[in-house]
Amino acid sequence: MFEAAEVGHTLDNDAYQAKQQQLRPELIAAQSRLRKSDFSVIVVVAGDDRPGCDDVIQMLNRWLDPRFVQTNAYGPPSDEEAERPAFWRYWRDLPPRGTIGIFAHAWSAAVLADRIQGGDEAAFLRAIEHVERFEQEMADDGAVVIKFWLHLPKDVLHQRLKAAEEHPDRQWRVDPGDWLVHESLEENLHTVEAYLRRTSTGSAPWHVIESTDERYRDVAVAELLLEAISRRFPPKKAARLRDKAAAAASGEEPTTFEKLDPHTVLDTIDLTQSLSKPQYHQRLDELHERLARASRAAYQARRSAVLLFEGWDAAGKGGTIRRLVEPMKPQLYRIVPVSAPTEDELAHHYLWRFWRRMPRAGHLTIFDRSWYGRVLVERVEGLATEDQWRRAYHEINDFEEQLVEHGYYVGKFWLHISQEEQLKRFKARKHTPHKRFKLTDDDYRNRAKWAEYEAAVAEMVARTSSSSIPWHLVPANDKRFARCEVLRIVCEGLERLL
Amino acid sequence: MFEAAEVGHTLDNDAYQAKQQQLRPELIAAQSRLRKSDFSVIVVVAGDDRPGCDDVIQMLNRWLDPRFVQTNAYGPPSDEEAERPAFWRYWRDLPPRGTIGIFAHAWSAAVLADRIQGGDEAAFLRAIEHVERFEQEMADDGAVVIKFWLHLPKDVLHQRLKAAEEHPDRQWRVDPGDWLVHESLEENLHTVEAYLRRTSTGSAPWHVIESTDERYRDVAVAELLLEAISRRFPPKKAARLRDKAAAAASGEEPTTFEKLDPHTVLDTIDLTQSLSKPQYHQRLDELHERLARASRAAYQARRSAVLLFEGWDAAGKGGTIRRLVEPMKPQLYRIVPVSAPTEDELAHHYLWRFWRRMPRAGHLTIFDRSWYGRVLVERVEGLATEDQWRRAYHEINDFEEQLVEHGYYVGKFWLHISQEEQLKRFKARKHTPHKRFKLTDDDYRNRAKWAEYEAAVAEMVARTSSSSIPWHLVPANDKRFARCEVLRIVCEGLERLL
Repeated sequence: MFEAAEVGHTLDNDAYQAKQQQLRPELIAAQSRLRKSDFSVIVVVAGDDRPGCDDVIQMLNRWLDPRFVQTNAYGPPSDEEAERPAFWRYWRDLPPRGTIGIFAHAWSAAVLADRIQGGDEAAFLRAIEHVERFEQEMADDGAVVIKFWLHLPKDVLHQRLKAAEEHPDRQWRVDPGDWLVHESLEENLHTVEAYLRRTSTGSAPWHVIESTDERYRDVAVAELLLEAISRRFPPKKAARLRDKAAAAASGEEPTTFEKLDPHTVLDTIDLTQSLSKPQYHQRLDELHERLARASRAAYQARRSAVLLFEGWDAAGKGGTIRRLVEPMKPQLYRIVPVSAPTEDELAHHYLWRFWRRMPRAGHLTIFDRSWYGRVLVERVEGLATEDQWRRAYHEINDFEEQLVEHGYYVGKFWLHISQEEQLKRFKARKHTPHKRFKLTDDDYRNRAKWAEYEAAVAEMVARTSSSSIPWHLVPANDKRFARCEVLRIVCEGLERLL
Repeated sequence: MFEAAEVGHTLDNDAYQAKQQQLRPELIAAQSRLRKSDFSVIVVVAGDDRPGCDDVIQMLNRWLDPRFVQTNAYGPPSDEEAERPAFWRYWRDLPPRGTIGIFAHAWSAAVLADRIQGGDEAAFLRAIEHVERFEQEMADDGAVVIKFWLHLPKDVLHQRLKAAEEHPDRQWRVDPGDWLVHESLEENLHTVEAYLRRTSTGSAPWHVIESTDERYRDVAVAELLLEAISRRFPPKKAARLRDKAAAAASGEEPTTFEKLDPHTVLDTIDLTQSLSKPQYHQRLDELHERLARASRAAYQARRSAVLLFEGWDAAGKGGTIRRLVEPMKPQLYRIVPVSAPTEDELAHHYLWRFWRRMPRAGHLTIFDRSWYGRVLVERVEGLATEDQWRRAYHEINDFEEQLVEHGYYVGKFWLHISQEEQLKRFKARKHTPHKRFKLTDDDYRNRAKWAEYEAAVAEMVARTSSSSIPWHLVPANDKRFARCEVLRIVCEGLERLL
């Protein structure tokens, strides 16, 4: 969940100034339109970067018209508050229609703190239920609900706290709680993740924002907020067409958040990793032996696995899957190639076709492309509505949680190659008779949308990767390296089951 | 929750035959329209009346075109099923778009059985979460999700089981599980209620149907199903106008479920109960003393209470509240008369105005009318949209659960009078100078909608009354009786807090 926000996003000062100059009037304009509307905006700012949360809230109050922004922060409950049900304080502070309410930490922090300080699971689940209801009620009432989790990689957090302590002006901003967060972040990661996953819904999503670079952080938050508010205003058709025409004329495309900093989690993948042929053959033999053992043992222990492969066209999914199944008994695995849905499948919920393929005890199902199509190709190609793909993250998380609760091993692989490598492979295919059939016009068309797909992949990883069901981003410019990497991860996954 | 379904609904044979003749072609017509549509219908039939569930499913298959109905029943999981996540069997059986899937007991029974057989609370809450997600996903995908809980009052259930056992033809239908349900119903009521409340949402509501009279039961289920499917078809304007015109011409109104059997839970209230003046004064004195003690003790123990009063106009809410607060220190209670919302209140979620009034520790808030306006006046007068009032039951349940979890005593009173008694009081008001101001044109207008309000009250009680937060239906034709009854219940409620 957090790895996608440990990319090292930055924004240089010029870009920041330009962005700021563009965003501030737009925010003010959106706010004035909001004032005449019948809904409110609820912004939650929380995260492990507590000083960062303060800064962001200050920024929002500076960039917005503060007369119509209410900021609500919560310490330990007052007498008044402690005497009433937990949500009373939040209800009391809800912004009226037409205005923006910013909530610092608020219910999220409260629920997490209770659990981390030893509350039992049932209480935690009940509290999550109340949070979900609360946010859903606000959304049903028309409110825009948007939540930011500001995340610092652990080493950066450590430096920050140290620096702040040593800097007399800033010292007041470090309270012992901040160190506590730092110390316990690792061990409580699972709790935080469970909370964020459970409460990140289509109508009240979490955005995990990397908070290392302040300029990037501020602009990202402001852009997402602006986008969320603007989405509510019915588009003025004429204006939109005009904008598009102007953009086309100037050769620019309309700015979207994804283009703010083109770096994504995919850029953190080291594509130079490779194996020589002899290395490869030796490793592959070892891994095959290990996998044969592990899959046999899993069968005997009646433990099952679900593996899925996504990746760019020509990233080598097919070849990897072939190497993967080689050492296993064919009775024990099934490969499900996922392409356009059949008539039968279209007649059902999009998850239905995948549910049906869940393996029996001791078996293994391998999906070549998967349910993530909903938030990748269907999103980018407009085959799913915005509502549909936005709520899909939550649906998919719930689905996969059920698999893991049942005891399956779930392995998710994104095979990553560079654009150049892809072109090279396309060209090679063209000249290899038995591979030529693999190349279609679609492949070239998809290349044109590389950036859009990249943004969709980054959001997918951010929303659906967790410590218990992580995405494995596999460098695949070198096929040999990729194959061994996948085999190694699958072996470990199966061995952990036993 | 169940009391509203223990009314003794019946339908005589003639009415049943007439209804059936009307309903069957309508069901077939709706089904054929459904076949050309892009959504499916998911019908869950469950309940404590297990033989009744079988009968209803048979009826549905008889009345509908069975070629496009799939009935799914579940025994203990097969090998195949046990080896996969719990919901696999249900996903597998989902009906394709255009068809109806009937699920006998299904996931509801499974989740309840796990909890009743000793599963822990966290597992129960996790399972409920999956159920909610599952049903929500189906609804989001466009499906009509409708759930029936067939309920038999305990004594009727007992007779039925006995009779079935003695009747050789029917004996096969009684399995030991049925007796178990019977034995444990009382003690597991709380679990069943919690489940039904939690999973009764706007998009996947439960209908608790009294199952004592088979004719009533069958027709009620069929009507509700027809209504739920029909709601999905965009009304053909011309046809609707024609229907209305025809109905007006014939003096008939369009049939709605509520009019099937005009009896509701309100008819079970014995309005003849009364107290003589001397009895009243003696009782009132005793109760006042007891209440003074209880409210003082509650204050010292810092325990709070929320009381709310709903009822027909002129039912005596004001007078009752006056008698109630008489013995209490004015610092300890606050009366909140609820009328049309202020501008401030309109600028917020409808529950906001009530949340703000929650009492501090040791205090008591009395609402003269309440949040139930959403499902009463706002529903009947069209001030809330159908979506809004339908999801309000769930919102209100969640709200009240938070109050009880926090330790509040929540007392809900419906003061009930007959239509005749109301008219008498209206007339008396007209002639009593200091009461004349209470009478407005609205009052007479509301009388015209008595039946609609009655249906709304019945549904409110069915959806929001539970063993931990029950509705008290107080006979109020005799004001003296009503006042003492309310005082007694409040005393008990407060005493239980201590």
